Amino acid sequence: MSTHAPSSAGTLSYEQAGVNYDLIDPLKISAQRAAAATAGHLAAHGFSEVKASRGESAYVVDVGPFYIASIVECLGSKALVADEMARLTGKSYYDGIAQDTIAMAVNDLITVGATPLVVQAYWAAGGSDWFGDAPRAQALVAGWKKACDTCQVAWGGGETPALAGIVESGRIDLAASCTGLINPKERLSVGDKLAAGDAIVLLASSGIHANGLSLARKLTERLPQGYLTEIAPGLSYGDALLAPTVLYSPVTEALYKAGITPHYCANITGHGWRKLLRHPGRFTYRIHTVPPVTPVLKFIQQHAQQDDREAYSTLNMGAGFAIFVKADEAARVVEVSKSCGIDAWVAGTVEDGEKQLLIEPLSIRFGDDDLQLR
Amino acid sequence: MSTHAPSSAGTLSYEQAGVNYDLIDPLKISAQRAAAATAGHLAAHGFSEVKASRGESAYVVDVGPFYIASIVECLGSKALVADEMARLTGKSYYDGIAQDTIAMAVNDLITVGATPLVVQAYWAAGGSDWFGDAPRAQALVAGWKKACDTCQVAWGGGETPALAGIVESGRIDLAASCTGLINPKERLSVGDKLAAGDAIVLLASSGIHANGLSLARKLTERLPQGYLTEIAPGLSYGDALLAPTVLYSPVTEALYKAGITPHYCANITGHGWRKLLRHPGRFTYRIHTVPPVTPVLKFIQQHAQQDDREAYSTLNMGAGFAIFVKADEAARVVEVSKSCGIDAWVAGTVEDGEKQLLIEPLSIRFGDDDLQLR
Repeated sequence: MSTHAPSSAGTLSYEQAGVNYDLIDPLKISAQRAAAATAGHLAAHGFSEVKASRGESAYVVDVGPFYIASIVECLGSKALVADEMARLTGKSYYDGIAQDTIAMAVNDLITVGATPLVVQAYWAAGGSDWFGDAPRAQALVAGWKKACDTCQVAWGGGETPALAGIVESGRIDLAASCTGLINPKERLSVGDKLAAGDAIVLLASSGIHANGLSLARKLTERLPQGYLTEIAPGLSYGDALLAPTVLYSPVTEALYKAGITPHYCANITGHGWRKLLRHPGRFTYRIHTVPPVTPVLKFIQQHAQQDDREAYSTLNMGAGFAIFVKADEAARVVEVSKSCGIDAWVAGTVEDGEKQLLIEPLSIRFGDDDLQLR
Repeated sequence: MSTHAPSSAGTLSYEQAGVNYDLIDPLKISAQRAAAATAGHLAAHGFSEVKASRGESAYVVDVGPFYIASIVECLGSKALVADEMARLTGKSYYDGIAQDTIAMAVNDLITVGATPLVVQAYWAAGGSDWFGDAPRAQALVAGWKKACDTCQVAWGGGETPALAGIVESGRIDLAASCTGLINPKERLSVGDKLAAGDAIVLLASSGIHANGLSLARKLTERLPQGYLTEIAPGLSYGDALLAPTVLYSPVTEALYKAGITPHYCANITGHGWRKLLRHPGRFTYRIHTVPPVTPVLKFIQQHAQQDDREAYSTLNMGAGFAIFVKADEAARVVEVSKSCGIDAWVAGTVEDGEKQLLIEPLSIRFGDDDLQLR
């Protein structure tokens, strides 16, 4: 999280919710440098890295006939919401949690143009007894399988360690690794294709997805009924938070079959809409159409007393994935997405100019210094 | 861990050290079934799985010109030893811990004949403050980089989440994912090549590696000086435990360059030497030469009051990796391994007959029912 996120009295910011990026960032920077220095090893095997993929959401290697993309991603703290809701309602939410975990990996992997092929499961429990709750464990397995089916990936295997003393008792640390191919190589979308005149298509989110959960959890302290607070008739805050993250790979695969190659993609996760500034080039992104805000996000914004600028800088606000394409293909991208059951909007344009994101309907501007990811 | 591990009064077994596999195994079995049922998805992308890799240490997909292998692996509880030793000595051990983590992934990946290409880091801390200890964090980065250099893999990136409430405060959950290629395809070693008459070459371990640590930690309760107990002049138990796991990929790559294709490989991790029974076929593995036992393993065996059978069923006992090759290539495998700085021994032979492992110098027999991994 950038330290530039605005904050004012009464609002609940991400830093207040307990994540201190100042402590993490020096490590990340030195790790990124060390990682970049290992790229040359690929030459010993006759291959090379796609350098532009450093800093993107997945790492890409050129192996000749195609590119290989790989990634490991963490669910984050959403499982804590599932655990608390399970205590309150007696239901198991781990089928959805499984989908969330796979979405974290798959939705990042596809940004570079990759077809996800293999997912590996990393399920590190706080003790053997976590797996003794059979309905919960079976929900995790069933949800994982179903998400693999949706994405047409093979579940290769994984690890189910019991890590008492490292993972908290009764908790589970969930992550997924994913390997895919960019095939044909023309599908690579690490940034060189993006151009002024391109359109920005936004794909609907289902809710908070799996980012912003520290904030969402903290917020329950302000709600007398906590997770059971109704945000709409019959819909509790907790249930709304636990809507599984949308899996976007069916859309990117359908686009390929429709002959459309995105110029760039951004998975809108942490940093909210500032992720639209992810591309390293100098472009102005002008948004003319803002998707409807998912009820749970509207609720969070209201109760965290965030203005629009802070909300859009942290949460996905109804848009979970952005696809940048040739302007004359944008309407077709919307159609293809809808045919996959995911709402979508032609939301804006890419222009030459200062690096900034202008959300015109809300009079919000984010500049280059609002997103420091690399 | 198999429930068939022998146990007797006074001995400290793996189950007593707190890992209950009876609770984990039903989940593993249903996960394995669900995972196997996803294999057909690869056909939608024009590819197929190598079915024999199910149940092996890495998952393999046939993508045409070569095979892709992938894996995610967890360090386990060795970091707890590093944390305690850091408290006792003021030193940071995370450079070695980084190597251990990568070894868990790489040493498994190479068993199928793959060249590791890309490693991703999964470093999930109990809070942002874990990363605030700069010497420790830098040691983790430096050790990770060095292990990548040794294995000639590219460090693609990774995740450094702060997971307060899931990972224990002050702790870190470390894992690595690894993607590699089996190229040329003839290098695939998932089992069909193994034959009676083949030789078994064992490669030296550096100590306990990263399996058996629950037992090793539990043992400190029996040692008045705990981790600072000297097991050899000037060498504490804790320091000996923290010897980093040997990285074996330089050997498998050097073997390829020397024109030698292993028929099968076994990474000797959990289940100790019972891993030599991993191959699904019916063979008798007759061991005539037993490598010297690393001092720390001898110490553990002695203080846990384990007989040889229990020790060899749990710990690597000086042999970290097994390579099964044509008999007339065995001596050359030893040479190649030694040229990589890793001691090795032609230790036994593969024979037709009942599925069993006979460690003749120790009069130990493990049968088929002593290893249930699939």
